[in-house]
Amino acid sequence: MAVENKFPGKDLSEDDIAQKIPLVAKKSPDHKTVFTCGGIEIGGPLVPVMAGPNTVETEDLIVESAKAIKASGGHFLRGGAFKPLSFPYRSPKFFEPREDGLKWLSVAKQETGLPIVTEVMEISKIDVVAQHSDMLQIGTRNMQNYPLLTEVGKAGMPVMLKRGYGSSLRDWLMAAEYIALEHDRLGMEPQIVLCERGIVAPHTHRSTSRFMLDLQVVPAAQEVTHLPVMTDPSHATFWQPWVKPMMLASLAAGADALMLEVHPDPRNAAVDPLQASSFEEFDDMMRAMRPVASAIGRTLDAGSNV
Amino acid sequence: MAVENKFPGKDLSEDDIAQKIPLVAKKSPDHKTVFTCGGIEIGGPLVPVMAGPNTVETEDLIVESAKAIKASGGHFLRGGAFKPLSFPYRSPKFFEPREDGLKWLSVAKQETGLPIVTEVMEISKIDVVAQHSDMLQIGTRNMQNYPLLTEVGKAGMPVMLKRGYGSSLRDWLMAAEYIALEHDRLGMEPQIVLCERGIVAPHTHRSTSRFMLDLQVVPAAQEVTHLPVMTDPSHATFWQPWVKPMMLASLAAGADALMLEVHPDPRNAAVDPLQASSFEEFDDMMRAMRPVASAIGRTLDAGSNV
Amino acid sequence: MAVENKFPGKDLSEDDIAQKIPLVAKKSPDHKTVFTCGGIEIGGPLVPVMAGPNTVETEDLIVESAKAIKASGGHFLRGGAFKPLSFPYRSPKFFEPREDGLKWLSVAKQETGLPIVTEVMEISKIDVVAQHSDMLQIGTRNMQNYPLLTEVGKAGMPVMLKRGYGSSLRDWLMAAEYIALEHDRLGMEPQIVLCERGIVAPHTHRSTSRFMLDLQVVPAAQEVTHLPVMTDPSHATFWQPWVKPMMLASLAAGADALMLEVHPDPRNAAVDPLQASSFEEFDDMMRAMRPVASAIGRTLDAGSNV
Amino acid sequence: MAVENKFPGKDLSEDDIAQKIPLVAKKSPDHKTVFTCGGIEIGGPLVPVMAGPNTVETEDLIVESAKAIKASGGHFLRGGAFKPLSFPYRSPKFFEPREDGLKWLSVAKQETGLPIVTEVMEISKIDVVAQHSDMLQIGTRNMQNYPLLTEVGKAGMPVMLKRGYGSSLRDWLMAAEYIALEHDRLGMEPQIVLCERGIVAPHTHRSTSRFMLDLQVVPAAQEVTHLPVMTDPSHATFWQPWVKPMMLASLAAGADALMLEVHPDPRNAAVDPLQASSFEEFDDMMRAMRPVASAIGRTLDAGSNV
Repeated sequence: MAVENKFPGKDLSEDDIAQKIPLVAKKSPDHKTVFTCGGIEIGGPLVPVMAGPNTVETEDLIVESAKAIKASGGHFLRGGAFKPLSFPYRSPKFFEPREDGLKWLSVAKQETGLPIVTEVMEISKIDVVAQHSDMLQIGTRNMQNYPLLTEVGKAGMPVMLKRGYGSSLRDWLMAAEYIALEHDRLGMEPQIVLCERGIVAPHTHRSTSRFMLDLQVVPAAQEVTHLPVMTDPSHATFWQPWVKPMMLASLAAGADALMLEVHPDPRNAAVDPLQASSFEEFDDMMRAMRPVASAIGRTLDAGSNV
Repeated sequence: MAVENKFPGKDLSEDDIAQKIPLVAKKSPDHKTVFTCGGIEIGGPLVPVMAGPNTVETEDLIVESAKAIKASGGHFLRGGAFKPLSFPYRSPKFFEPREDGLKWLSVAKQETGLPIVTEVMEISKIDVVAQHSDMLQIGTRNMQNYPLLTEVGKAGMPVMLKRGYGSSLRDWLMAAEYIALEHDRLGMEPQIVLCERGIVAPHTHRSTSRFMLDLQVVPAAQEVTHLPVMTDPSHATFWQPWVKPMMLASLAAGADALMLEVHPDPRNAAVDPLQASSFEEFDDMMRAMRPVASAIGRTLDAGSNV
Repeated sequence: MAVENKFPGKDLSEDDIAQKIPLVAKKSPDHKTVFTCGGIEIGGPLVPVMAGPNTVETEDLIVESAKAIKASGGHFLRGGAFKPLSFPYRSPKFFEPREDGLKWLSVAKQETGLPIVTEVMEISKIDVVAQHSDMLQIGTRNMQNYPLLTEVGKAGMPVMLKRGYGSSLRDWLMAAEYIALEHDRLGMEPQIVLCERGIVAPHTHRSTSRFMLDLQVVPAAQEVTHLPVMTDPSHATFWQPWVKPMMLASLAAGADALMLEVHPDPRNAAVDPLQASSFEEFDDMMRAMRPVASAIGRTLDAGSNV
Repeated sequence: MAVENKFPGKDLSEDDIAQKIPLVAKKSPDHKTVFTCGGIEIGGPLVPVMAGPNTVETEDLIVESAKAIKASGGHFLRGGAFKPLSFPYRSPKFFEPREDGLKWLSVAKQETGLPIVTEVMEISKIDVVAQHSDMLQIGTRNMQNYPLLTEVGKAGMPVMLKRGYGSSLRDWLMAAEYIALEHDRLGMEPQIVLCERGIVAPHTHRSTSRFMLDLQVVPAAQEVTHLPVMTDPSHATFWQPWVKPMMLASLAAGADALMLEVHPDPRNAAVDPLQASSFEEFDDMMRAMRPVASAIGRTLDAGSNV
């Protein structure tokens, strides 16, 4: 297919198009992107774990969570400051921290050294989110918000692109290409990690669950793209007791990173209380995952050589 | 559930919350929103047909299409000036007309009197799109782009909210609530039409089709919301020969409006050539639908009394 | 593809294979099977309606139902004598009538003249079911029970093949081919009607519904097979208020026949009380459908010329 | 719900119903069925691997396969003698071995000691299949063939019940109850293993794949039933390169057994050549799985103590 780039700004040359496009496609069987974010390598033998509460409820909560996550060996702190809520009203319990939440994340980073992953939902907030995070997260509902993808790409930072809950692998990769194109224009290798977070399916096994973790997409994606692929079992299963088996399964399936919700008091979490794991449950999972990582030639220990 | 509104700006009173929220919910079995857009009533006995090309390719094409649609009895002209493309590169054939396309739509309106429906993808373009259209369309990929929904709501214009292709009825209605809340703040009844455009499903029957038209959602939505509900069989089926039966079926199922792609030369359309209908096919559909509308106590003739 | 028939018994010749296989495939755009069952034509302008209770609960109930269905213009009496129940225990309310139910169906036929459609679940019961029915129904759970399909085919009677609730159009047609092959061996044209009865899908809109009526499959099937295609909105929607719009939509989409559950006292039906229509609801639907049938050039009146 | 058992033959007492029904339900958090089949324990720390070709093509092929599987540490030999084919015609390559295939399986068992798992499709063949196998397999297309389930249950042998490709967990468990009821009548604990083999889903990632492996069902099923749960990644993925990651993921997710297709010459397999693994690929998988089993406190070595 002859591809003509009509984007404003720098055009791709014919040679670029022939040799490089799609930017997210594997160019050889061993082609695999590895990049470093906040000092942590993604795409290599280390399988970084990104943990934290759904929402940055208070400064104390996020600092306390970061310390517990750090103590158990987690690698990134995640937490939502800007929250896409499906309904425009909030329960009395819920408070969207917005810029305050970003500052609290920065405090938690200072206290623990954990790099920060947090979601950006609007073009007008990219700058402020970028100041307080190491990786910009695009949520499932914005996977095909192309203007947002382009502007996030221009920030030149690592990006986690969550899969749209109804989207095909093809749509997901084509969305990643929007970001990759901006990274390429900045002279960077694409620094994107694809995150499977559950898809709609005929049967999800609980009346409270709306999604199914699609682990088949891990080898399917790795077959065609050089980008690292990760999973988010908390949002997929929406049920804490299934998170541990799906974390272990993701790791064994070859996921390059893992994300989950951890909260000091899950049953009282402001959002999604059924899916969050306690500090003890998180610690138990990390202990359970380490020998599995080792068994498949990977590691959860950032300093180790595999 | 006690609901507290934490939105910036005007707060809802406790009474409002108790009596009005969700704004999109039916308050009685006969509760049905009827509103007028560009002189055409939506939600009443008339079933308006919104037709036009996927993309406003040229001024001539859109004017020619508008005339043919008008001649066959269509009620709205639809066409994309801003186009969400799944991949950041365009084929040589494709040109995104952007503001030029909006002007061409206005020319077509002047020539034919047909009101305009067109998509808005970015907050920064709402003003210019609003100047050139009678109804703002939110596309399937932006159904849960909440900042966009809020800003589009603030424009105080009729909105067509396409269903996300993986979204539940509940998610769709909650997204509509974002727009309805802004309309309510402006002192308007909500002027929103919900558009089913095909969902992901296990079997879509052609390897080229990715979506299935969900007609069960028409009575399901009408059971719980007072908003009008319409369908878009072209995007759902992605195959022109199935558009006519699905138009007729949508009408018979109780859809309050219908949308389809019409192009003077479908096989050479810049986008989605397999799903567009020719002027002759459109005229044939309109002829076939009129007696069905009549049979169910509705009409396709804007001036008629049913 | 060179096809070799290894079936026991009469072999197909090379010529047969080249010209006739698959037997269920359309050989030309106008190729459409029309056959008569119990004096009622299927596949022509008439759209026969097959109505009756889920289960033949008592002789009185089925005779009363048959009279009401006849009075409202229904064409076939349907009712289950042998019932596939998903769980091996029965509520006190439920009684599987088995051979008794078949006899009661015959009484109802004698009283009203309505031909009978009823399900056969086991090879050992084909003979007795065939004695008391005009059309053998294969249920969704047995769509790929190939030994049953073959033996039912050998009975040389009209067959209604319900679509498996997770099955593709391709699987459905290939299952029909098992029956068609036996009809061909008997020197008959295939007398098979394909019945869409709802499929599993990500969103079915009520927590009580498990299925979605797939109307897109009506034109999709008619594009490739000459067999008539019908729908069963009661089982698909599992909710009576949606049955009427889905009956009308099925008719408008081009369905060649329609099936629904009708019960004298739906809320007290032994099985599936939420989906059954009362006699009054059935009569209302028949009245609503007649003008729609007429509008699309078909009819619900067995004696009429369209 | 008061449950009344109307089955012919021995009735359940009121006490049985109150305390035992559903037979497949967990009665306490630690309730887990363990049973022995052909000397191999299922449901305990051992995770038995059932391997072999899709079809028992020849005696040599099945004996050669059994030896290779045994050498690599596989625990059961699987292979189809009776084959449900979706289309009634066979390619010249395909030969359904039927009773001959059963005999060849017995030869392979004599040579290697591997117990046999093979499918039974018809009531009339249960006796002969039972003579030549240690575990009766019910295929996905027969999961709700209730007469077959009942008769297979009466054989009093271990049964593998594959999940219907469109079926919910609830339907699957209710189907298992049919078998469990017969085992209970024989005075046995239920000897049933549930096998997830891929379900229909909106996106399966290859145009050649029709199914998605649902690993979320492993913890979901184990939450509510005491029966062991296993997976079949070959049929689910339909693509050999994804089998290894999905085997490892299944193991890590807590599957109690694993099944896969192994063939001496996969590309020339009579059926499903894209999904079968070679002997070398199988050996590599077994080597990769052993340390993962050990890491999660299980084992692949029948003689070991964990």
